[in-house]
Amino acid sequence: MTEKLSDETRGPLLEPLFAAGWQMVEGRDAIEKTFVFKDFVEAFGWMARVAIWAEKWDHHPEWSNVYKTVEVVLSTHDVGGLSALDAKLARKMDSLAE
Amino acid sequence: MTEKLSDETRGPLLEPLFAAGWQMVEGRDAIEKTFVFKDFVEAFGWMARVAIWAEKWDHHPEWSNVYKTVEVVLSTHDVGGLSALDAKLARKMDSLAE
Repeated sequence: MTEKLSDETRGPLLEPLFAAGWQMVEGRDAIEKTFVFKDFVEAFGWMARVAIWAEKWDHHPEWSNVYKTVEVVLSTHDVGGLSALDAKLARKMDSLAE
Repeated sequence: MTEKLSDETRGPLLEPLFAAGWQMVEGRDAIEKTFVFKDFVEAFGWMARVAIWAEKWDHHPEWSNVYKTVEVVLSTHDVGGLSALDAKLARKMDSLAE
């Protein structure tokens, strides 16, 4: 079952993400990152690949796109904060953007 | 060439869009609309179809997606406000959402 990250699991899951450019959202138990691509085709192509994983895992991002830039916020609505699913989707986003 | 909508062309192009649920963005010469779909697959599927037209016309939306909801803002960066391209893309978005 999905549950909110505990104090023990939080560090090991989030620290590698912070090192990869993710950061906490001000005033929310959520993480955010801005991805910048070469152009719109690259940006939306990445979103399409992410979308398939998000649907497969039934865990969807909050995201906005302006041309080559995609701003992402991840949090788990059902638990009111960060869960392991957010870390999993964040890692997938990073790997798909490489 | 793309140019900012004149006082004469503005009404005829924008009124039908206002009737279809578009509205002016506060403090900006831009239009916005919120599209709500059945679920994420429907929402992102629509975005993918819009994305292809946007790239084909080299005119891209500012948009954000949270699960089944997509918020769109249209404006033409090159002219610092609304152009006929925005009306064209807005109509395409509406027809693809039907």
